Amino acid sequence: MPDSDTAGWRRRERPLRLERRLEFADYEQTRVFLEHSESLSEKTAIYPNMSFGRTYVNLTLFADEGEQDIAPAVRAFAERVDALAGADRVSVP
Amino acid sequence: MPDSDTAGWRRRERPLRLERRLEFADYEQTRVFLEHSESLSEKTAIYPNMSFGRTYVNLTLFADEGEQDIAPAVRAFAERVDALAGADRVSVP
Repeated sequence: MPDSDTAGWRRRERPLRLERRLEFADYEQTRVFLEHSESLSEKTAIYPNMSFGRTYVNLTLFADEGEQDIAPAVRAFAERVDALAGADRVSVP
Repeated sequence: MPDSDTAGWRRRERPLRLERRLEFADYEQTRVFLEHSESLSEKTAIYPNMSFGRTYVNLTLFADEGEQDIAPAVRAFAERVDALAGADRVSVP
């Protein structure tokens, strides 16, 4: 059951993680998002695994090994990604 | 048989593509590389699929659909990535 505050993310098990796919209108928007999320990683020392192409970004936020839940700091990162994504792109898939 | 000029890349079939994994000493180096390769994509309109974490980047350069070989422009992109990577990081796996 996705939690309300990280609704845009899918929670997956084994290993426990949050996943989200974002799509952008063009590479410029993709790039702006990437730069913002990279800065966020530097500030928070939280580094999602990311894969991207010209107009999409897939993010994966892993729970720390052995943890039964997603840490609050990781959840907060997910929320800030949502805010970034909301600001950085036009179409919501 | 990898071509000499893109030796660092693995050539894969179905679909035809070049793949490479780069590792970096820290996130700062990873980020510098990402920014340089994103600029390269903007200049060349060639957009590798990339996945990255804190200290690694995987790149995939697909051949155009139906092509029997990797286009010269894509090969040139691969070479410029090698040059970027050589300049941006310390350890070679």
